[in-house]
Amino acid sequence: MSTVNTKLERPGKALVDALAALGVATIHEAQGRKGLMATHLRPIYAGARVAGSAVTVSLPPGDNWMLHVAIEQLQDGDLLIVAPTSDCSDGYFGDLLATSAMARGCRGLVIDAGVRDVRDLTAMGFPVWSKAISAQGTVKETLGSVNVPLVCGNGYVRPGDIVVADDDGVCVVRHEEADEVLAKSLDREAREAQVRERLRTGEIGLDIYAMRERLASKGLVYR
Amino acid sequence: MSTVNTKLERPGKALVDALAALGVATIHEAQGRKGLMATHLRPIYAGARVAGSAVTVSLPPGDNWMLHVAIEQLQDGDLLIVAPTSDCSDGYFGDLLATSAMARGCRGLVIDAGVRDVRDLTAMGFPVWSKAISAQGTVKETLGSVNVPLVCGNGYVRPGDIVVADDDGVCVVRHEEADEVLAKSLDREAREAQVRERLRTGEIGLDIYAMRERLASKGLVYR
Amino acid sequence: MSTVNTKLERPGKALVDALAALGVATIHEAQGRKGLMATHLRPIYAGARVAGSAVTVSLPPGDNWMLHVAIEQLQDGDLLIVAPTSDCSDGYFGDLLATSAMARGCRGLVIDAGVRDVRDLTAMGFPVWSKAISAQGTVKETLGSVNVPLVCGNGYVRPGDIVVADDDGVCVVRHEEADEVLAKSLDREAREAQVRERLRTGEIGLDIYAMRERLASKGLVYR
Amino acid sequence: MSTVNTKLERPGKALVDALAALGVATIHEAQGRKGLMATHLRPIYAGARVAGSAVTVSLPPGDNWMLHVAIEQLQDGDLLIVAPTSDCSDGYFGDLLATSAMARGCRGLVIDAGVRDVRDLTAMGFPVWSKAISAQGTVKETLGSVNVPLVCGNGYVRPGDIVVADDDGVCVVRHEEADEVLAKSLDREAREAQVRERLRTGEIGLDIYAMRERLASKGLVYR
Amino acid sequence: MSTVNTKLERPGKALVDALAALGVATIHEAQGRKGLMATHLRPIYAGARVAGSAVTVSLPPGDNWMLHVAIEQLQDGDLLIVAPTSDCSDGYFGDLLATSAMARGCRGLVIDAGVRDVRDLTAMGFPVWSKAISAQGTVKETLGSVNVPLVCGNGYVRPGDIVVADDDGVCVVRHEEADEVLAKSLDREAREAQVRERLRTGEIGLDIYAMRERLASKGLVYR
Amino acid sequence: MSTVNTKLERPGKALVDALAALGVATIHEAQGRKGLMATHLRPIYAGARVAGSAVTVSLPPGDNWMLHVAIEQLQDGDLLIVAPTSDCSDGYFGDLLATSAMARGCRGLVIDAGVRDVRDLTAMGFPVWSKAISAQGTVKETLGSVNVPLVCGNGYVRPGDIVVADDDGVCVVRHEEADEVLAKSLDREAREAQVRERLRTGEIGLDIYAMRERLASKGLVYR
Repeated sequence: MSTVNTKLERPGKALVDALAALGVATIHEAQGRKGLMATHLRPIYAGARVAGSAVTVSLPPGDNWMLHVAIEQLQDGDLLIVAPTSDCSDGYFGDLLATSAMARGCRGLVIDAGVRDVRDLTAMGFPVWSKAISAQGTVKETLGSVNVPLVCGNGYVRPGDIVVADDDGVCVVRHEEADEVLAKSLDREAREAQVRERLRTGEIGLDIYAMRERLASKGLVYR
Repeated sequence: MSTVNTKLERPGKALVDALAALGVATIHEAQGRKGLMATHLRPIYAGARVAGSAVTVSLPPGDNWMLHVAIEQLQDGDLLIVAPTSDCSDGYFGDLLATSAMARGCRGLVIDAGVRDVRDLTAMGFPVWSKAISAQGTVKETLGSVNVPLVCGNGYVRPGDIVVADDDGVCVVRHEEADEVLAKSLDREAREAQVRERLRTGEIGLDIYAMRERLASKGLVYR
Repeated sequence: MSTVNTKLERPGKALVDALAALGVATIHEAQGRKGLMATHLRPIYAGARVAGSAVTVSLPPGDNWMLHVAIEQLQDGDLLIVAPTSDCSDGYFGDLLATSAMARGCRGLVIDAGVRDVRDLTAMGFPVWSKAISAQGTVKETLGSVNVPLVCGNGYVRPGDIVVADDDGVCVVRHEEADEVLAKSLDREAREAQVRERLRTGEIGLDIYAMRERLASKGLVYR
Repeated sequence: MSTVNTKLERPGKALVDALAALGVATIHEAQGRKGLMATHLRPIYAGARVAGSAVTVSLPPGDNWMLHVAIEQLQDGDLLIVAPTSDCSDGYFGDLLATSAMARGCRGLVIDAGVRDVRDLTAMGFPVWSKAISAQGTVKETLGSVNVPLVCGNGYVRPGDIVVADDDGVCVVRHEEADEVLAKSLDREAREAQVRERLRTGEIGLDIYAMRERLASKGLVYR
Repeated sequence: MSTVNTKLERPGKALVDALAALGVATIHEAQGRKGLMATHLRPIYAGARVAGSAVTVSLPPGDNWMLHVAIEQLQDGDLLIVAPTSDCSDGYFGDLLATSAMARGCRGLVIDAGVRDVRDLTAMGFPVWSKAISAQGTVKETLGSVNVPLVCGNGYVRPGDIVVADDDGVCVVRHEEADEVLAKSLDREAREAQVRERLRTGEIGLDIYAMRERLASKGLVYR
Repeated sequence: MSTVNTKLERPGKALVDALAALGVATIHEAQGRKGLMATHLRPIYAGARVAGSAVTVSLPPGDNWMLHVAIEQLQDGDLLIVAPTSDCSDGYFGDLLATSAMARGCRGLVIDAGVRDVRDLTAMGFPVWSKAISAQGTVKETLGSVNVPLVCGNGYVRPGDIVVADDDGVCVVRHEEADEVLAKSLDREAREAQVRERLRTGEIGLDIYAMRERLASKGLVYR
């Protein structure tokens, strides 16, 4: 059955923004290396780093009707997460939908399919992570669902989960784990800042992390 | 048999330039969603938008001899459309051929294979849409044909057709349909400009396109 | 057995720098079209052109322990060449390892796997050629080897070989052939400069390279 | 945290066997076209058709340690569902593990990675759906989890869900929906049997499904 | 516009059958190495070798409505050639459509998309060359066209062209060239039969084709 | 320079045959998990298992001239190992070359490109591991080399190395290490036979390999 879940519980915006600032690699590590989407989801332009509350859209191949339905569900701070029900690289989303999404406060799009008008989207500063860039248009004939759990880019996303995206990819943080992930991410970042300084002055990981003994015990031989 | 068709009927330059200004997504929609090449053809740098009269080159894998033959056939406003007779990602084309093509007024290259010297091509402002970037050189041993109909990136191109390319991909417009496609594209663009304004101010597609009733009749349920 | 070869014979830095200036396409042609790595190795940002003495690292899928071992072996002017023992796109290398590598004079990384923190790496000016960009972290459990001959991106590399990389890809020059390759590359570049001037003024390859007779004898027909 | 869920609620065997007999295409249609895994999961030999209660295994790239842990959790009628935490094509599973799995009543393996000893597995009649065939061995160093929900081949699977697999692919049926899916599948099969007979004698779908009017109203033109 | 061309000129059946007997590799060579479709089109079972008059179907991604329209146009000796207007791997065709197509004398299917019920199709002896095997169903909402020229698997096919398919792939023979291609193919086969005998008794190509002198003149060195 | 090395040192036939009997997975493990070629090299038919002394051929994309040169170098017990100098899927090899190779005692072909006439090759019992199946023919214009070290399918092969191939893939054994690899492989096989018996009767790897303590110490939790 095709449904639209209109009563979405969203994470707090301060939490989302704090995660956005940390970036995908740090968050992915801090939450135990889970939640990362597949590497074929690439940004249409370099340098964007966003996080948002997931508004999810499951739709048919070659049919973007449900995106219009999803737009109405968007609130300030949301991120659109879109997955077709079978492989498709059509250009589901372009500058008109982006204009509408931005007018509602949407921070970007993650789509396991294609996107178009990328020159305009880049000029508008609307970031997209997609599987393909394609001018191929879509029809409006078949229903799907909005705000249901789905798999996007081999990652499982529930509406209201936090999705973080930057040049390194896209990562899902469970709504209920976000506070803990943020704390661990900040810890990790602080520790890395210290290590970075030591590395910059010429110390190396073998010593900082005290790896030599374990390497030797595993049988590493220097010649 | 290997042939060079030297008597090419070309579209008018005003027509070609008008199509270039509109871009691939608009033109592809306006002509009924046909003529788009495969998404694996990507620009070597972002931001270029060109159209030209197709000079087509069919050549063997790993052999770029016919590109030298094709250069002589180029006139101001042409676009080179190159397809190997079997899968190949070699670097058929580099800065020397680009220098020669530019000297004859060629506006760019679409090649279902590889290209090289991309740093130089970018600096020269010579746009290329290709399947691969590869330094791999090619030989000059086997003939092909120039200005014959061919399939490039899963799209059928006849010499003298208009090819439009930008960041969204590459689209072929039939010579004889170009006037009508231009008119429809301009219409579409005008309509989209109006919709864009309404979307910017917060109206949404569900209302602008009056989709709610049809969605309900198909069975969409809001919860 | 897992080994680290600590006694690497390196090419002279003047030689390496001269090759870097020439770029991949020229060098690949000059050495008889050999040594080019596969086209799936792409730069994380455009415009870098480097050469270095290869420090090679063979390591398991999903395990970057040996990169820490390799860092210690790096000297000024080296390039890290990393290949997993089976297909992997994990993010083996990020900004911390890059900080450490740069502190030791390393000029960049070629890795037939994934890399992360690409925004930071770009800001640092540390060039990477990789198969993928991925935030996916790796473990430190299993040994590999440093400075052994290996296959990276379908190319065979020995430690101390010179590796050149730019926007066109990555090419290996054998240590013992580097002087000859440099000489031939300079020759080629000089010849190309002359041809480029003639092409710019409108001469074409058919005449400059005297191809017309051979084309006709092979059976090319003009219509 | 790495966990093994030992208290799995399994579907009834009669239900599972009834679903196995129906096959993937029928079940996938009957449950509303959801639950299908990606097409890159292919059988190692043609003709197998199985269903089983999912025992899921999430494990690291290149490390099959958790498969040994999972074997102990297998009961008669189970199907192993295995997904690495990042892309990997190594041969995680071969004839020894298959011997052990068969001894415990396991009906087959679905793995979003590689498998080996396929000649032996075929001779043993142990069916496998995998992404790759590879002799590449794996290590036993890093933990994962058994019987946790996971994404395998872009499909979401919970332990105890029913997984059906045949030459058409792999499909997940939710434990709690299985009775309804079975009923709908049997209905569908019965209806299809009737249609099949009519088609065999020369009637066509345009008439059986009364499509002509709707086609005409959409604008189809016969010439 | 969506059209069905009902007045198809078909090649003679004797001609088609003679081409079928020769196979793809011979025909492709005999007609000058053109017309071969892409290698991603693979047979669902080994050993089939067919030829037929092309009934072409252009249809949307994820929508197989036009296949029902096409069935009515099939005559004895036809081959269905199906291409979606953008990349799609859904299972457009299964055992019901095959039953109907066989009832009308159709010899098989070439589809640049997915197919399902492959176990049944194999048992029925209905050969299919496809890009994918997938149980994913399709909708019936959007029109396409039947018997228009189209590109399928990077090959250009017109309705009424002869398409030959076997384990080596799929090849298109132009209707108007078929007599000449048949003659050349028979010649080629006769010549190959003679060469095969000589090779079997130990003669080698270097001598049979008198290649030694030309190899030496190109610079081949024996050590 | 293009060369043919005519003075190849070959391994003893008893050694090669003993390795063939063991298969790829066992040998690959026994020699420390090295030498495996990429998984895209697949057999054209199931069930073949061969080993042979490598006769290597490096040749241009789309040009099979050097295969004729290589045929003359074949001796009883050899295996042809063929790699193009850049990506190519053309059908370099068919039933005529196979007839000639078999007449000289060649045991099969490994080619990182395409092959054709696969129905005939299967009937002849001439096994091939290839990247593609394609009817696309090749030219005879450009030289390559025979019996030089090369990279095939991401694996490094020297002429006279032993190459083993079966349904699990293709593995290279260094000439000088073959005796040791054989001994280790036989050991491994004997040990596996014992384990297989224990597994068959219901013992499991956790106990046979005494893994429980180490799993617990790493933190595995049973619930």
